[in-house]
Amino acid sequence: MNVDGTHYRTIWLADDGWTVNVIDQTRLPHEFQVLRLETVGEAARAISTMVVRGAPLIGATAAYGMCLAMRADTGDTAIDSACAQLAATRPTAVNLQWALSTMRNALTGLAPKDRVDAAYRLAGEICDQDVAINRSIGTHGLEILRELSSRRRQADRLNVLTHCNAGWLATVDGGTAMAPVYMAHDQGLPVHVWVDETRPRNQGAGLTAWELQHHGVPHTVIVDNAGGHLMQHGLVDVCITGTDRTTAAGDVCNKIGTYLKALAAHDNDVPFYAAVPGPSIDWSIRGDALQIRIEQRPATEVSHVTGRADDGSIVRVQITPDGTPVANHAFDVTPARLVTGLITDRGVCAANRESLHDLYRNAEPVLDS
Amino acid sequence: MNVDGTHYRTIWLADDGWTVNVIDQTRLPHEFQVLRLETVGEAARAISTMVVRGAPLIGATAAYGMCLAMRADTGDTAIDSACAQLAATRPTAVNLQWALSTMRNALTGLAPKDRVDAAYRLAGEICDQDVAINRSIGTHGLEILRELSSRRRQADRLNVLTHCNAGWLATVDGGTAMAPVYMAHDQGLPVHVWVDETRPRNQGAGLTAWELQHHGVPHTVIVDNAGGHLMQHGLVDVCITGTDRTTAAGDVCNKIGTYLKALAAHDNDVPFYAAVPGPSIDWSIRGDALQIRIEQRPATEVSHVTGRADDGSIVRVQITPDGTPVANHAFDVTPARLVTGLITDRGVCAANRESLHDLYRNAEPVLDS
Repeated sequence: MNVDGTHYRTIWLADDGWTVNVIDQTRLPHEFQVLRLETVGEAARAISTMVVRGAPLIGATAAYGMCLAMRADTGDTAIDSACAQLAATRPTAVNLQWALSTMRNALTGLAPKDRVDAAYRLAGEICDQDVAINRSIGTHGLEILRELSSRRRQADRLNVLTHCNAGWLATVDGGTAMAPVYMAHDQGLPVHVWVDETRPRNQGAGLTAWELQHHGVPHTVIVDNAGGHLMQHGLVDVCITGTDRTTAAGDVCNKIGTYLKALAAHDNDVPFYAAVPGPSIDWSIRGDALQIRIEQRPATEVSHVTGRADDGSIVRVQITPDGTPVANHAFDVTPARLVTGLITDRGVCAANRESLHDLYRNAEPVLDS
Repeated sequence: MNVDGTHYRTIWLADDGWTVNVIDQTRLPHEFQVLRLETVGEAARAISTMVVRGAPLIGATAAYGMCLAMRADTGDTAIDSACAQLAATRPTAVNLQWALSTMRNALTGLAPKDRVDAAYRLAGEICDQDVAINRSIGTHGLEILRELSSRRRQADRLNVLTHCNAGWLATVDGGTAMAPVYMAHDQGLPVHVWVDETRPRNQGAGLTAWELQHHGVPHTVIVDNAGGHLMQHGLVDVCITGTDRTTAAGDVCNKIGTYLKALAAHDNDVPFYAAVPGPSIDWSIRGDALQIRIEQRPATEVSHVTGRADDGSIVRVQITPDGTPVANHAFDVTPARLVTGLITDRGVCAANRESLHDLYRNAEPVLDS
């Protein structure tokens, strides 16, 4: 993706060849800042404080976190403790576990002296693989948008509703749910995106809107409460969201509030798709997806909102009374029955075990590890 | 309701007997300020800027706005222009139209010299009637809470989820949706309220939480995205919301996002009630409730959030990128099929024409005027 004419990924190696640069997403949309990570601790903190977020990017950052750990200590104990430290940052996105087990499996089989080079090589491959996956999701999703566009409800635009940020900032590059949208826009489809602001952290208002603006895609920010009303009035042609973890049965765990949009889509005959990279599939959950551990994040994310004051300073303001109790569940689960289809890197499929298994037959054992 | 030991209504006459005092709800929860209204223009502005809000309180304020208009000019033209000015403030809540037509019908039949006294007398009656209505809603709703409490899902509490503010701040006193909750709490039921923050204006986080805190009712603020997840996990026993306009067929127009909660309640077998004062019923809409004109409010309500900074000052911060388009629909319609029942001042009834008509048989002609 381009930011003011310069191409960026969300994570890349600095010129020294080993420190890791990331875009500090807690500063967007008001400031574009690059942060350098030099230790596994800094990588873990970047994930837990959401300097980087989005399931694919969390996985990539964890992979580079393992590289930084190896640079400091190539021993077996270091592998274990780095994996544990990084795995503890965020419990819900399965890409994190996937990236860590991929790194661990590769590194433990090597002599310590070979581990640093191998780690950097593999982390780079994970990043490149993510970009390729997203390109593939984009291509498959584009076909859906083309088909829907031919019977769109408003003559002048195809209305896509999305929740949270599943654009390039959530990935290494390209985005998942937004990949088809960028391709559609580039190819001249009159796509317009309703962007859920996505409380409590406003990844829609702050990140998705910023991305779409930089790419020139028409969009409108709405509060999370508004999507149902828009669907009732025929103003949404399709919903596309990302996923932090999709079960083998096709249940979609994603940012809190996704379930409510899927319900509204179902109630109004609006197709609802999740964009699902292979590494986001959790093959181990075969039964009730409500057993997925849902991260509970700090109360201050709800009780306070950060933004730019009139004087240009970044300020955090409190919106609740002092002492008000707050709960902050970060994700919910959309049952497969509400999902029209999964846009994966291997094609679009129905949200059920058989369809997913058919697409990923060879991959499942690897991802299961 | 008591605030720090002093009983308040949300609107009352000052000691001079004619100026109108209201609580400035745009300053809550951080400051408790009383604002004096001396002209119909000030009353209209208080409604449009949401110094006062909530369908019943909007109606009461409009009634007192007519009083202030009469004090300045008792002529027929003054009645017409004051009605027009006040009616234009907010299009969706039907109480506003009801209060204005009640005032207009009474005043036009009187000699100009009698209009000031009559206006103040009638406005006072409208306020007292609202308090009585809410007490009645509370009594009827309390029976529902008692019954649900006997089979509540969590042993230690009966979980009520509410959206926006339908507490005493939305009314002259007592509240609509929260009236049964206050009564239940006072009578020892272990009620706990999940408070939707209710973006964009955060009436839940700022007003409902503040009210419940002052009354000592256990509560937890959540983002609007969270309710579906809580219902999936058995953490909600009942949803109760207010209404800005309920049609004769039982469709409930209320704060944007209500529809999404009703969908989630339906999907999880959680009963969903709206608390409906008689003056909130629109007998004129007999067909499609989606024809109700939905107010669109300023974009800055979405793009900016107001709260208290660490230094104690009240600050407005921007959360979207500069220039991002925003839409701000203030209400949505929950179809009657998703509504378990309407808690009215005349009893609880099913959300359909026959049941509502049976309860309000005598009232309908008056409200239709």
